Amino acid sequence: MVAAQALVFDVFGTLVDWYTPIKRLAERIGAERSVPVDGDRLATSWRRRYRPAMDTVRSGARSWCNFDELHRGTLADVLAELDLDLAAPDRERLVAEWHRLEPWPDTVAGLAGLGARFITGTLSNGHMRMLVDLARHGGMRFDVIISAELAGTYKPDPSVYLTAARLLELPPDQVMLVACHPEDLAGAAAAGLRTAYVSRPAEWGPGGTARPAPDIADVAATDLIDLARRLPGA
Amino acid sequence: MVAAQALVFDVFGTLVDWYTPIKRLAERIGAERSVPVDGDRLATSWRRRYRPAMDTVRSGARSWCNFDELHRGTLADVLAELDLDLAAPDRERLVAEWHRLEPWPDTVAGLAGLGARFITGTLSNGHMRMLVDLARHGGMRFDVIISAELAGTYKPDPSVYLTAARLLELPPDQVMLVACHPEDLAGAAAAGLRTAYVSRPAEWGPGGTARPAPDIADVAATDLIDLARRLPGA
Repeated sequence: MVAAQALVFDVFGTLVDWYTPIKRLAERIGAERSVPVDGDRLATSWRRRYRPAMDTVRSGARSWCNFDELHRGTLADVLAELDLDLAAPDRERLVAEWHRLEPWPDTVAGLAGLGARFITGTLSNGHMRMLVDLARHGGMRFDVIISAELAGTYKPDPSVYLTAARLLELPPDQVMLVACHPEDLAGAAAAGLRTAYVSRPAEWGPGGTARPAPDIADVAATDLIDLARRLPGA
Repeated sequence: MVAAQALVFDVFGTLVDWYTPIKRLAERIGAERSVPVDGDRLATSWRRRYRPAMDTVRSGARSWCNFDELHRGTLADVLAELDLDLAAPDRERLVAEWHRLEPWPDTVAGLAGLGARFITGTLSNGHMRMLVDLARHGGMRFDVIISAELAGTYKPDPSVYLTAARLLELPPDQVMLVACHPEDLAGAAAAGLRTAYVSRPAEWGPGGTARPAPDIADVAATDLIDLARRLPGA
């Protein structure tokens, strides 16, 4: 395997746990308001609506809008589905929580180790400010923050992956996407990037099972520490 | 003074010393090739051509081209001026040296201290990859790399400053430019940003004198450590 010079990371699910903080905050709000809230269902139903919402932007049906805007719209749908009535300030707390998610236990140390050998960056559908907030909150260090916002559309549109290669002044095959989602890796591979699969069995809550590594992945790892062991030096 | 939430930093001169590394490499190449090279003159003449070269892009006379491309063109002019004939590989070493400049002694610690209280980013005319290389080489940590490249034109065009505010999702007056160049600070102020002047008397070589702080500066400091003392907490 030819080593890439830069590693770019998917963020939601791959580097941070969205399930636990969203579930916990939803349940806390329920306790505060004395209404029963199924935090697991709110978190997973909300996250499941992320892809269709993005698709309205990717298809061109809707002009660029960022995750906060998408989350506000999809949260209203989730609350209707759960027959739950939350006031605007509580909804905003939930939307804002996506800026304060928690890194997986291996993430911070893994990024630091990989950063010593490779240029590291985000390559997330989250917008720039959201990624800055997540990195600061979680103590995640990157050399560069790259967001789909800079391409004006969402992954897996090829232009997002190619924007990363262009800004890093590298041929696509010198950039490796690290992600836990096969469809993201497939999009990166289609754009000519290298791909590393990291399994995150707990992405959708405890008791989940890891999806098998997609055939397309150049390397597969159980976490970022394992990934560092498997990659040749830069 | 209302505190800004984010500090964005000019890089060349403000955070890193371009004079010493360029002069030193020019003299080293001269020694290797046994030709006399006036390193001081090469460095300062080269840097002096930076502004007019950028102006061809800012005026729209020339489409976007990055610092490496500008530096290649202006280096040819400098060598002609100095009646110096350098082979292409030596010219490329000089062009590449702008990716490996040295932070001022207070820069790394100053950025770390300010980064604990403010969102920090670059806001440089250098392109994204150049800024990534400089940050990695010098150990400078930022929350985000923002370059004029993302606006497609150069400072002091207002769109460059406003691109930073837009990507950080902040009103312009919540972003403060830190720079040692009065014209950069004036551009930021005209776009509605706050401004911090840092004096860098050695920018053009030892024995230089600091320019007085421009009236427009919201705060003036002798270096980044001093700046941290003068800024209210975020």
